[in-house]
Amino acid sequence: MSNIAYIPGDGIGEEVTRQGIKVLNYFNDLHQLGLKFEKFDLGAERYLKTGDILPDDVLNKLETFDAIYLGAVGDPRVEPGILEKGILLKLRFYFDQYINLRPIKLYKEEFCPLKGKKLQDIDFTVVRENTEGIYAGVGGFLKKDTPDEIATQEMISTRKGVDRIIKYAFEYAREFGKEPKLTVCDKSNVLTYAHNLWQRAFKEMGQNYQDVKQDHFLVDAITMKMVRNPEIFDVVVTCNIFGDIITDLGAEIQGGMGMAVSGNINPDSISMFEPVHGSAPDIAGQNIANPLAAVLAAAMMLRQLGESRLADQTEKAVVTALENNMITSDIGGELSTDQVGDYLVKTLKSNE
Amino acid sequence: MSNIAYIPGDGIGEEVTRQGIKVLNYFNDLHQLGLKFEKFDLGAERYLKTGDILPDDVLNKLETFDAIYLGAVGDPRVEPGILEKGILLKLRFYFDQYINLRPIKLYKEEFCPLKGKKLQDIDFTVVRENTEGIYAGVGGFLKKDTPDEIATQEMISTRKGVDRIIKYAFEYAREFGKEPKLTVCDKSNVLTYAHNLWQRAFKEMGQNYQDVKQDHFLVDAITMKMVRNPEIFDVVVTCNIFGDIITDLGAEIQGGMGMAVSGNINPDSISMFEPVHGSAPDIAGQNIANPLAAVLAAAMMLRQLGESRLADQTEKAVVTALENNMITSDIGGELSTDQVGDYLVKTLKSNE
Ligand SMILES: CC(C)[C@H](C(=O)O)[C@@H](O)C(=O)O
Ligand SMILES: CC(C)[C@H](C(=O)O)[C@@H](O)C(=O)O
Repeated sequence: MSNIAYIPGDGIGEEVTRQGIKVLNYFNDLHQLGLKFEKFDLGAERYLKTGDILPDDVLNKLETFDAIYLGAVGDPRVEPGILEKGILLKLRFYFDQYINLRPIKLYKEEFCPLKGKKLQDIDFTVVRENTEGIYAGVGGFLKKDTPDEIATQEMISTRKGVDRIIKYAFEYAREFGKEPKLTVCDKSNVLTYAHNLWQRAFKEMGQNYQDVKQDHFLVDAITMKMVRNPEIFDVVVTCNIFGDIITDLGAEIQGGMGMAVSGNINPDSISMFEPVHGSAPDIAGQNIANPLAAVLAAAMMLRQLGESRLADQTEKAVVTALENNMITSDIGGELSTDQVGDYLVKTLKSNE
Repeated sequence: MSNIAYIPGDGIGEEVTRQGIKVLNYFNDLHQLGLKFEKFDLGAERYLKTGDILPDDVLNKLETFDAIYLGAVGDPRVEPGILEKGILLKLRFYFDQYINLRPIKLYKEEFCPLKGKKLQDIDFTVVRENTEGIYAGVGGFLKKDTPDEIATQEMISTRKGVDRIIKYAFEYAREFGKEPKLTVCDKSNVLTYAHNLWQRAFKEMGQNYQDVKQDHFLVDAITMKMVRNPEIFDVVVTCNIFGDIITDLGAEIQGGMGMAVSGNINPDSISMFEPVHGSAPDIAGQNIANPLAAVLAAAMMLRQLGESRLADQTEKAVVTALENNMITSDIGGELSTDQVGDYLVKTLKSNE
């Protein structure tokens, strides 16, 4: 039995995750998975009404769940950063979700903005460190609001933190890798402290994974390579901020936010799964938002809960929807958000 | 009269800058510009022989010049980072070259890795802060080489440093902008100290430039936008590390390192101009390296020295070479490095 905390959040969050829940409920009934959902209203509405972002009692309650399924947070009425930091980053840090897993996978050739790339050319995974680096929140101001102002922001890498993410990435490459190969991405030629630690950690950990090919790219060079030769990547491990940047680039080469998924994982605690896209307030409530990323996030959650077979089936259904153009208008179809969800469940049924 | 310090550096550096010098000498003779070149042997050879990277007496001597024309540094026999930091970064910091100017311009449609982009779609300039941020070199280790090790790396933004680069970028947009529009790229939703300062500085400076459209992108989102809709950019201003990353991505969408140019500028002191590509030791000495970026760097130097008309003529000659396929094999031609240089001079002559 698994208890799932369900946070639809803002904007299109509710609409798109509803389709993920449809798929999860279908499996639940069919296979008696014992999934239970409880909905939490966090996001702009609550914040604007009560001033609460993520109150302690909600945090304490969330601790009793097995996983979190999140839609999107963000609202034009709220200053940018408040909800993202107060909910998304807060949960990542509170539950020590040190792994941010971001598959970069092209599902349909015509989605790709790059010339001449085939499906198999864009199929790798970024493993992003998710709890430290320059996201630590450490820093300050000196002489604020004067011409002599100085602001500092600390990038902090701990050996423990870097070791565990690199180890996870090696294990991941070994288990799921096509080759398997692990590429570390850093800026060690300039960040001679924080990324010197990364370099040493990678080399030492690599000794235990001689069966995994090992490669290195500087962050500037990797953006070029991702555009020119994405086929050379299998698994990429990197720090928090560089992971943030290159996974968005990755989302774009896999066809845009419509398909991009993010797992915030702590293998020993509560993991959180979300589509990468935002709350898209401009199209919220119109039943036209693309739910595929939310459904793929549900699939990733299934995998984390030990249901790999059902995760595979879900991904296969998404591919079928794409092949048959049973998709929303943003990616070239004509269906509503709900219709896409229904089609996916129908496809799963007929594949049974 | 202008004295140019000429640092060919390592690998292909000498071959490619020789073509830039050819062009400069041609103009020099024709227009009596009074350019004088003095060559400085810095780079791997000298370092390996003497241990010197950039000795003080060389630095002192460089101070007497008007500009520096640099090829490339880096050699497989030298640990990565040593020469880049000891020469490139050292010069940027020593001469306080706080502006890193990187035009992102597509010169030939077929060079572009993106689908459906025309020449005019990829034509913007990144203005990168070049003397602070996380490049400050400030940081340290605690409990080094133990499992409890912590490494820190400080991102330092000063109001003075951020103000001056944003001001330059606004002025640049006003003078050269197509629209004109200035986009600031940061991660202010997470870097609540360093990039909060950036946000405030941008907004305040923007008051003085109401005629310049003003826009903002988070660094992760801008990588997507650069791939999807590069046509929306005119001038982009950003911090040191994000500039490093997005200008490499920019180089790729403009057709790869073969065309990318970098100006390290201090309007009141000595500026340095270089092709972005590395020393490419694998093809060094074969007279096959592509000299166009080095020639475009020479053009940028001419512009900085007040010779805009000659800079324009040089860029036009490069376009002619591309149109007539009078280029090296890496970008689809059959000429040698030297032949490209000769062709450019011939073209300039016939355009006279
Ligand atoms: C919303 C923001 C704080 C977040 C991040 O920077 O990590 C997002 O960009 C992401 O990648 O999940
Ligand atoms: C060589 C390296 C130190 C340098 C940088 O990081 O600035 C380079 O990547 C650049 O962009 O000029």
